[in-house]
Amino acid sequence: MFFHLYLDVKLPPDMPEAEASALKAREVETVQRYQREGKWPHMWRVAGRYANISIVECADADELHAMVSALPLFPWLEVTVTPLARHPAKI
Amino acid sequence: MFFHLYLDVKLPPDMPEAEASALKAREVETVQRYQREGKWPHMWRVAGRYANISIVECADADELHAMVSALPLFPWLEVTVTPLARHPAKI
Amino acid sequence: MFFHLYLDVKLPPDMPEAEASALKAREVETVQRYQREGKWPHMWRVAGRYANISIVECADADELHAMVSALPLFPWLEVTVTPLARHPAKI
Amino acid sequence: MFFHLYLDVKLPPDMPEAEASALKAREVETVQRYQREGKWPHMWRVAGRYANISIVECADADELHAMVSALPLFPWLEVTVTPLARHPAKI
Amino acid sequence: MFFHLYLDVKLPPDMPEAEASALKAREVETVQRYQREGKWPHMWRVAGRYANISIVECADADELHAMVSALPLFPWLEVTVTPLARHPAKI
Amino acid sequence: MFFHLYLDVKLPPDMPEAEASALKAREVETVQRYQREGKWPHMWRVAGRYANISIVECADADELHAMVSALPLFPWLEVTVTPLARHPAKI
Amino acid sequence: MFFHLYLDVKLPPDMPEAEASALKAREVETVQRYQREGKWPHMWRVAGRYANISIVECADADELHAMVSALPLFPWLEVTVTPLARHPAKI
Amino acid sequence: MFFHLYLDVKLPPDMPEAEASALKAREVETVQRYQREGKWPHMWRVAGRYANISIVECADADELHAMVSALPLFPWLEVTVTPLARHPAKI
Amino acid sequence: MFFHLYLDVKLPPDMPEAEASALKAREVETVQRYQREGKWPHMWRVAGRYANISIVECADADELHAMVSALPLFPWLEVTVTPLARHPAKI
Amino acid sequence: MFFHLYLDVKLPPDMPEAEASALKAREVETVQRYQREGKWPHMWRVAGRYANISIVECADADELHAMVSALPLFPWLEVTVTPLARHPAKI
Repeated sequence: MFFHLYLDVKLPPDMPEAEASALKAREVETVQRYQREGKWPHMWRVAGRYANISIVECADADELHAMVSALPLFPWLEVTVTPLARHPAKI
Repeated sequence: MFFHLYLDVKLPPDMPEAEASALKAREVETVQRYQREGKWPHMWRVAGRYANISIVECADADELHAMVSALPLFPWLEVTVTPLARHPAKI
Repeated sequence: MFFHLYLDVKLPPDMPEAEASALKAREVETVQRYQREGKWPHMWRVAGRYANISIVECADADELHAMVSALPLFPWLEVTVTPLARHPAKI
Repeated sequence: MFFHLYLDVKLPPDMPEAEASALKAREVETVQRYQREGKWPHMWRVAGRYANISIVECADADELHAMVSALPLFPWLEVTVTPLARHPAKI
Repeated sequence: MFFHLYLDVKLPPDMPEAEASALKAREVETVQRYQREGKWPHMWRVAGRYANISIVECADADELHAMVSALPLFPWLEVTVTPLARHPAKI
Repeated sequence: MFFHLYLDVKLPPDMPEAEASALKAREVETVQRYQREGKWPHMWRVAGRYANISIVECADADELHAMVSALPLFPWLEVTVTPLARHPAKI
Repeated sequence: MFFHLYLDVKLPPDMPEAEASALKAREVETVQRYQREGKWPHMWRVAGRYANISIVECADADELHAMVSALPLFPWLEVTVTPLARHPAKI
Repeated sequence: MFFHLYLDVKLPPDMPEAEASALKAREVETVQRYQREGKWPHMWRVAGRYANISIVECADADELHAMVSALPLFPWLEVTVTPLARHPAKI
Repeated sequence: MFFHLYLDVKLPPDMPEAEASALKAREVETVQRYQREGKWPHMWRVAGRYANISIVECADADELHAMVSALPLFPWLEVTVTPLARHPAKI
Repeated sequence: MFFHLYLDVKLPPDMPEAEASALKAREVETVQRYQREGKWPHMWRVAGRYANISIVECADADELHAMVSALPLFPWLEVTVTPLARHPAKI
């Protein structure tokens, strides 16, 4: 099943550079592992914002929550989830 | 998988009584069929409003959309869907 | 009487780990006691967020407020309460 | 138990005068009956708007919903319900 | 003249316990003095939130502002004021 | 006492020209009567919108409501009232 | 360049069935032509709503506007456009 | 002085084609006259919406209001005006 | 030209008393200088809030911005500006 | 392609003066370089706020994001991007 995610990152601007870099590196690693596992097929940067729009495919909301709450940036994320169904006009 | 639904009914007050009654009767029938099939385990009236809060259990978002869009009142509904995961503190 | 609760948890990401863990452990204990007493029949995690949707059953708003304000996480909660009535189409 | 109600009346300005007057007369009758029964202890006009703020006392949300949905103006009302608890500083 | 107040208290959860207790004690004192003077006839706790809904009676907005801004918790309050008129259907 | 009013006019664009003109003429008359009586000391057009911002002076919310609800355009107005107090820095 | 679209369809429930069906058939045709041209790579139904989330690829905002405003349902659409950039963590 | 305008056009989809075309033709004429007079230096279509963003230059808010309220589409416009000042970093 | 200002003051409650008092004293001075210069003809306290509604008269948005950004409290202000035109019904 | 930007600057009022000045100086430098390169043709101060409205011209959303996220103030900016198309009535 597909879920649409809007992830807004709210890192405090005064977080020490080293801490922020380490967090972001771990975030990339995690997100790329999800991609390699085929569970995070799409991800785009929202132009002009520290935010992304993603399409995640997983078994159900339990797996989705496990995936999202395991993101290293999770405590600083504002996440909006929209469940997606197949569109009848999609070829 | 469970979905939380907030259904706000926006029937125009000037809809002819007979038409409104027929619609509502068919709505009840459909919703009760879903209940008997075990797919709509909870449903409450939002006190003071023509709205309800429901918990629906179905395979995925495709089945959810099929169920909701088949409701006779669907064209007059404002529906908000929230996907639910198991809560770790739930006994 | 039933109340619908949306509880959004706003713990600051920089709360010391030990303090956060202790708070959450006491929260689980409290919520599970309410469950065993039959006063908190439903609780789900809102997928992708540190939030939950619950159905609480209690005598009235006084008992509800006593229960919610006794939650160890209460100072960090954004709580939205919706009073629920029986739905006429509920079997 | 007490509930706080905000009732916004959305009568279409082009409703025939006679129909509107009859509706409003029946509304007054109903609301005054609730007052005489002791169930609608407070009611104020929101200055400058066709809206009112009321405090209703009733057994539970079922009785509240029955009372509100029986108002002749109900199909044109936007109702917001807030459950009230006793305030500890109230003398 | 009557005013409807919605007072949302935003005390930071990390305020030292002693400071918070002292503040709240002075708040209760002030509010109870207003009650004894007949200027704060109604006050309810909004169930589930650190907020209250009050009805205040005073000469005009100058007195209202003097009363509210003298509350010890004023710097942490989010206050919404609604001026109330007599309702024509009030018995 | 002073009240700040934001009046948004929502006349349907398809109201017959004659009806709209008559309404507006009566509105001007009423508002100018209030001005001559000293009760509507300020009124500005919100640039680019069919709306105005006004300062009204009257005894209390009862008089305010009587004045506003007697405006010929009242059924098409969205009115927001803000009670005003004297500002301590006002010379 | 990619654009994210949220398309909310606001067809009036009382549109004659034949008119609605014809409109929708032409909509499907148009959207499927865009898909065959490679300009509308993703489209999902927002579960429970008459709405869809799409990813459109086109030269620029001029082409995007031409495509969207040529949709037969355009007069009834509420469209929200979000420009998308490549995400640095996308494999 | 410069004003920033967001103009959202809310023409009802069921307006007769001839009426809509005539209105829009007169709108174009008016807007182009303002452009030739140097009072409407910038105008863009908001991609995907029947809306535009414009920069208007005029003496003051009186002239602005006269210009905007003379637009043939004015009764169907939702207009948001933002007054602009010179930016200190503008070359 | 007239501008309508809504100024919401967001001073942190834990700002040292001396610092806050000094700031406020300088604010009063500045605002009273503007009043003596005839540029700030009206100013009211929004009852119950640390906010004010003002009418400012100045040459254009450049002067307005210079005046507002020179207020000592500017870094803590949330300012909303509405440009005002003459109202045709104003006597 | 043109993008409309609304940039709201949220610098904390307690940032040390020297740090803020240095940041702002680098911001001006960067924005003026973009202007000299022809990529930031318009920029206005939103009167009364620490915000600006800009029109940026660049190849696509990737270049836009690179430009905006390279602004020294980026961590403190709330950015809203609106893609712009040519307006058919623009001369």
